[in-house]
Amino acid sequence: MKIGMIGLGKMGLNLVQNLIHHQHQVVAYDLNTELVAQAAECGAEAAASTELLVAKLDKPRIVWMMVPAGKIVDSVIESLTPLLESGDILIDGGNSHYKDSIARAARLAEQGIHYFDAGTSGGMEGAHNGGCFMIGGNRDVFSGIEPLFKDMAVENGYLYAGESGSGHFLKMVHNGIEYGMMQSIAEGFEVLEKSAFDFNYEDVARVWSNGSVIRSWLMELTQNAFSKDPKLEGIKGVMKSSGEGKWTVETALEVQASAPVIAMSLFMRYRSLDQDTFHGKVVAALRNEFGGHAVEKSE
Amino acid sequence: MKIGMIGLGKMGLNLVQNLIHHQHQVVAYDLNTELVAQAAECGAEAAASTELLVAKLDKPRIVWMMVPAGKIVDSVIESLTPLLESGDILIDGGNSHYKDSIARAARLAEQGIHYFDAGTSGGMEGAHNGGCFMIGGNRDVFSGIEPLFKDMAVENGYLYAGESGSGHFLKMVHNGIEYGMMQSIAEGFEVLEKSAFDFNYEDVARVWSNGSVIRSWLMELTQNAFSKDPKLEGIKGVMKSSGEGKWTVETALEVQASAPVIAMSLFMRYRSLDQDTFHGKVVAALRNEFGGHAVEKSE
Amino acid sequence: MKIGMIGLGKMGLNLVQNLIHHQHQVVAYDLNTELVAQAAECGAEAAASTELLVAKLDKPRIVWMMVPAGKIVDSVIESLTPLLESGDILIDGGNSHYKDSIARAARLAEQGIHYFDAGTSGGMEGAHNGGCFMIGGNRDVFSGIEPLFKDMAVENGYLYAGESGSGHFLKMVHNGIEYGMMQSIAEGFEVLEKSAFDFNYEDVARVWSNGSVIRSWLMELTQNAFSKDPKLEGIKGVMKSSGEGKWTVETALEVQASAPVIAMSLFMRYRSLDQDTFHGKVVAALRNEFGGHAVEKSE
Amino acid sequence: MKIGMIGLGKMGLNLVQNLIHHQHQVVAYDLNTELVAQAAECGAEAAASTELLVAKLDKPRIVWMMVPAGKIVDSVIESLTPLLESGDILIDGGNSHYKDSIARAARLAEQGIHYFDAGTSGGMEGAHNGGCFMIGGNRDVFSGIEPLFKDMAVENGYLYAGESGSGHFLKMVHNGIEYGMMQSIAEGFEVLEKSAFDFNYEDVARVWSNGSVIRSWLMELTQNAFSKDPKLEGIKGVMKSSGEGKWTVETALEVQASAPVIAMSLFMRYRSLDQDTFHGKVVAALRNEFGGHAVEKSE
Repeated sequence: MKIGMIGLGKMGLNLVQNLIHHQHQVVAYDLNTELVAQAAECGAEAAASTELLVAKLDKPRIVWMMVPAGKIVDSVIESLTPLLESGDILIDGGNSHYKDSIARAARLAEQGIHYFDAGTSGGMEGAHNGGCFMIGGNRDVFSGIEPLFKDMAVENGYLYAGESGSGHFLKMVHNGIEYGMMQSIAEGFEVLEKSAFDFNYEDVARVWSNGSVIRSWLMELTQNAFSKDPKLEGIKGVMKSSGEGKWTVETALEVQASAPVIAMSLFMRYRSLDQDTFHGKVVAALRNEFGGHAVEKSE
Repeated sequence: MKIGMIGLGKMGLNLVQNLIHHQHQVVAYDLNTELVAQAAECGAEAAASTELLVAKLDKPRIVWMMVPAGKIVDSVIESLTPLLESGDILIDGGNSHYKDSIARAARLAEQGIHYFDAGTSGGMEGAHNGGCFMIGGNRDVFSGIEPLFKDMAVENGYLYAGESGSGHFLKMVHNGIEYGMMQSIAEGFEVLEKSAFDFNYEDVARVWSNGSVIRSWLMELTQNAFSKDPKLEGIKGVMKSSGEGKWTVETALEVQASAPVIAMSLFMRYRSLDQDTFHGKVVAALRNEFGGHAVEKSE
Repeated sequence: MKIGMIGLGKMGLNLVQNLIHHQHQVVAYDLNTELVAQAAECGAEAAASTELLVAKLDKPRIVWMMVPAGKIVDSVIESLTPLLESGDILIDGGNSHYKDSIARAARLAEQGIHYFDAGTSGGMEGAHNGGCFMIGGNRDVFSGIEPLFKDMAVENGYLYAGESGSGHFLKMVHNGIEYGMMQSIAEGFEVLEKSAFDFNYEDVARVWSNGSVIRSWLMELTQNAFSKDPKLEGIKGVMKSSGEGKWTVETALEVQASAPVIAMSLFMRYRSLDQDTFHGKVVAALRNEFGGHAVEKSE
Repeated sequence: MKIGMIGLGKMGLNLVQNLIHHQHQVVAYDLNTELVAQAAECGAEAAASTELLVAKLDKPRIVWMMVPAGKIVDSVIESLTPLLESGDILIDGGNSHYKDSIARAARLAEQGIHYFDAGTSGGMEGAHNGGCFMIGGNRDVFSGIEPLFKDMAVENGYLYAGESGSGHFLKMVHNGIEYGMMQSIAEGFEVLEKSAFDFNYEDVARVWSNGSVIRSWLMELTQNAFSKDPKLEGIKGVMKSSGEGKWTVETALEVQASAPVIAMSLFMRYRSLDQDTFHGKVVAALRNEFGGHAVEKSE
């Protein structure tokens, strides 16, 4: 099949290679012309603008957006809508909020454009060699683009999840689980590190990756990380986040679901962004007030 | 090699089969004679008592205990110590507390008996087909029994972890991570269940098991569970626990390690054991006191 | 001074009595005519409609709304705006979201109406005998209505907090702290209840209310509650919530503040609303899958 | 009455003054002779050793220990036991673990010495002007020393809690609640600090101390702290702890009580002791592994 790819960052470029590897034709565009050149080297047809990208596609056109969530998605959609026609298909493969996807699908449906929200997991490696896709949108139209997902995914690695928004909803919750799993693994290693034992963490991660109840891709990645830096001495423990974990917690609040572990994983990430905390100052000050306990002075 | 197995429960019997499958000779004993008969059917040599089990082994003898943690381990050790000799090897493959294992190893060392703590993971399936083993004890003596672990484990699925106690310490922390991972997955599905979407959970667990960042054995087991009962309607959400998660939290407290996620996973398990809670009654009563908010009456 | 009170529920009626006790004149209105009659008995001037209420006030008019947060506030404002004039003052004493208050203040400012968000704490008793007020809005205009707050509050019990929204923001965070304090107290009593000791909880709450570090109004209310029902046997531990705790957590997420304790207090409330949980079912099913642990069957 | 006081630190010296103020006679001893001199200046009779202290008391003797928990209590008891006689009374006013107190009471009972565990709350100010006492031990003997507690406590500020250990158990749980309350207050101020508003925290703590639902001694102390340092800029947010919070969590684990908020309060304290965390390094490394997210380098 032929597909246009807008956004050739870490994920987009790998997807392009994945598609070409499976004999699909890809027209590639990015604001960054260097990335377009890289895509062309991989066998994609370069496009110098969204107009040219759309022009190079057959009807009904299939366009995949792989751009950062938020306003950038809206501006790409805005630039595309005058160029697309009824029956064309637009796929958001990024990490958009599912409510945005629902709204966008409804807006584009008015023009007859079929919008799909395709949550994409598996990291860069998955994008390249076979990833995981959770797709929301019109079921009948989906069957037409299903071969693309079948090729890009590992076996059993794609799911038509339901109506618009369901794909990004699943991806959001997936990331919430990911936060919890990562924090679980990380706390385990913190206990090891503070224990009196002297473990080789790469060995530990390896044995836990093979045959154990907690074997998982994340544990294999943990092994990789320790193989490069046995005590992670070169890495600061600053845990950034890109939104989906926060959305999962917000959704849990909205539907009154108990999600203490996902929430705590997120709060520990926020905590890691602060060198010192105001709540810590308040508690230290209070201990001094009632018990005369010494406080450490700020420099 | 030839090995005695004491304890033929869910894990022990599967280990027996695993060992026999790898051409080892197993002498099997359990208080439950039916289980001994089952082991014999699998090709093990039946023993009617620990005395007879020890008598059937070659020196230096190798005995594997696969019995519940706590006093039972101590009573098995007590019955074995008069029978074993200097140079013999005793392995605790169960979920003993690592401090107990350190103490037992020290006590048995006085008699020249080599004690190993071998944390075993992988569930019944792992015990049968290839599991994961974390072993603490004397390194030199370990090399003599290493072939057993090599055969019982999947590839890269065993680790000589260090001195006595290190094997059970790793297993303890492994289970702490397991608690966190399970609770993470479970919270994700709770958010799905309370959402407005109508997901097929078996499908979701399947797609998350293939190519995603959170692919893991636990996610595959989640898929299995949903394949049998699509909404888990037949199962009550009572989450029991057998101690290792608690020990992990206690250890975190002891070494002052941040382990909020493992701790919350445990507290949600305890919470699930109560139909109603006293803390809930206090909060409900307080809301009524200051704000006149209605309380629900107990029947 | 003369003030109109719209909303004569648990809080509103007590405020009316408080104001009248301090020699203010109150015109009172509620959809529920019985409540209007009660206010009249307390010395308020009854109004049969918002129109009549406004008509009975002197310019610049002062109107206090004490109605449930959300759409009801908007509909009261909608009914009032045609009746009010530039220079009039409208106070929202309820638990509105601070962002709503900022928006409402801006909208009403276009008509010259001064809008104040007045977070009110202290429960019904405080409303009646002297409460706590956190007020956001125009500082200069505030000085004109300050005497009302001075009279309604206990000493030092009101604060001009700053621009519009700051009053309700403080009240929101106040309630977040309240959730955490209540859960802390409640967990303490849960530990007592599950201990081997046999405490008299009223006595415990009394001693903790007098001279201890944790002495607080909430502890006194705990004493009250136990004095009526020594083991709270008549109360179900269902912990409802009315929104401010949730908003506090959402705000913490928004500003990336570590608020694990307030968040956990909220999640335990949500947990208490469910008889059984889906996350519990998933964990129970997983334990059965890998370890053969028995599950409890749902009826 | 006449009483011996061993330990004249922050709490002990204030208790001495409190007792003398209420016309009791105090014999005071501490290893630090300067503190003994200070006690003498306050009107106590100085003792140069425990022997001399005991010698100056009337039978049945009453001795109050106000020393750090743990081995120091044991060594003081060891030095006292040969000096005391059947019928004498020994009170541990410190923060000992309740299980230690139960064991000590049992041991001393063999000699006929009555041991009381007296949890003391209220900080230095309470010790001086009237504090809060929770006392475990023999009920009949207690009535003989009750006047001391009546005088040292604020009104309703002491409680005979029950058998040995119950006093320190209550104090332990009291401190667990204290941790939760402090963290709740602290998180609230963290949300204020990170908000777009510009609050005066002393003012906020003052208004919350007067008439609000969360009014409490801790909030008054918060006001004091902010009055000295409006943004707590001079204080580092390092939150130390002295054991009782940890014991509360351990007890919650033991009795399977849900105590997420007290536990999280403790974990945030531990977190504050680390400049960087190993769990943070692991999560940061994992994000880099699967998503190519940049890590911050350690210096």
